[in-house]
Amino acid sequence: MFNIAIVGYGNVGFHLEQMIIPLENFTLKKIWVRNFDHANALFTNNIEELLQPNIDIIILAINDDALKNFSGFLETSEALVCHTSGSIAMNDLPTQNKGVFYPFQTFSKNRKLDYSKIPFCLEANSDKNLHLLMELAKGISNNINFLNSDQRSYLHLAGVWVNNFVNHLYSIGYDIVLQNNIPTKILLPLIEETAQKVISITPNDAQTGPAIRNDQSTLNKHLNLLQNQHYKTLYKILSDSIATKYEKTI
Amino acid sequence: MFNIAIVGYGNVGFHLEQMIIPLENFTLKKIWVRNFDHANALFTNNIEELLQPNIDIIILAINDDALKNFSGFLETSEALVCHTSGSIAMNDLPTQNKGVFYPFQTFSKNRKLDYSKIPFCLEANSDKNLHLLMELAKGISNNINFLNSDQRSYLHLAGVWVNNFVNHLYSIGYDIVLQNNIPTKILLPLIEETAQKVISITPNDAQTGPAIRNDQSTLNKHLNLLQNQHYKTLYKILSDSIATKYEKTI
Repeated sequence: MFNIAIVGYGNVGFHLEQMIIPLENFTLKKIWVRNFDHANALFTNNIEELLQPNIDIIILAINDDALKNFSGFLETSEALVCHTSGSIAMNDLPTQNKGVFYPFQTFSKNRKLDYSKIPFCLEANSDKNLHLLMELAKGISNNINFLNSDQRSYLHLAGVWVNNFVNHLYSIGYDIVLQNNIPTKILLPLIEETAQKVISITPNDAQTGPAIRNDQSTLNKHLNLLQNQHYKTLYKILSDSIATKYEKTI
Repeated sequence: MFNIAIVGYGNVGFHLEQMIIPLENFTLKKIWVRNFDHANALFTNNIEELLQPNIDIIILAINDDALKNFSGFLETSEALVCHTSGSIAMNDLPTQNKGVFYPFQTFSKNRKLDYSKIPFCLEANSDKNLHLLMELAKGISNNINFLNSDQRSYLHLAGVWVNNFVNHLYSIGYDIVLQNNIPTKILLPLIEETAQKVISITPNDAQTGPAIRNDQSTLNKHLNLLQNQHYKTLYKILSDSIATKYEKTI
């Protein structure tokens, strides 16, 4: 039986709590938060409680800026201290036992997720520590991956493209239909199928649209429809990017 | 009972065939293709067969460039001639009875789709013609919409953002992980959740990432990781676009 403390109770901390509570071989002992809920004995704002010898694993679920400062307070800890960040190297942690427990997913408190499908990316500074993180991750998910800090930073970057940037394009699609009195829900089946399609074929093979077939007539029509100069520029650049990528294969 | 002819047997024509065959009140009589399958009596390359009085509806499932020429051959037809294009106005059809039967979805011959969820966008030049298209669409889908030609052209434009451009961003994410020896399937749960999230919250509310929180440290890290100059430029422009859109709300 291993005892776990989570630091931070944002979107990741909240979901880590849900993931860990049902586990048989791991007990969630403490959640450190700046402003803590006095009515719930699980919560504390006292760092000393994290440094008790009964804590085996400390998972830092705080943002990258806070991570550096906070991990300094844990320097003397003998627990396995790990963070959940895509872009911070494991060796930035100052502790004797260290690792990374990076769930590659977007979390919101109000969205239920099937934790068993979340890709966990693990790294640790010893076989023993890696084995411990593996045991923890295996209780939660069937999708365990071993990435070093460099690979993880690239995966995080790829996540910005397929999540943050994709969501921004959704928002532009929404703006366009809303401005024309079309209900936004009309976009959902296409959004869903676009995502589902890449399960069976690669995005390169799935690419369609006026840019890849060099359909200047439709491209010009679309540029004329876009009143927002900013979106017009983005439309041109994205279309050029598609045309350039597939130039040799057209 | 109404008889239907389809013109074209690309991705849309193929799926229209699957949609229409099971219908009780509509019979698929002919599929016109340039190079036809002699072994199958359904197929023809003879335009005269489309002009027979037993054909009630002709659905043009050909690309925008071919549409103008082909519809000219049908000028004398008394059938309801409709096209399936997002960006061509209904009035570009030269026939007496005309309409639009636009399924807002991405089609591939090798992808099965739940037709009942596809948004159909209908337009016709008379109540009688609109009613006929409605009967046809209702047999296929539960998602029927009435859009005029202007609205439909904007919807088509929105589709380029949420499908073509989104898929291009997937392909860049794939490139980044492949170059770092990470299996691409690690991206799929995030791609899927990003799409699912906008069913319950708007993309504006779902937006996260370094750009919206003005996290210069991560933005710079990512720009340094990107070796491809082209992707570097696109990363900057998309991040600026996100920062600009939410400037007032940060």
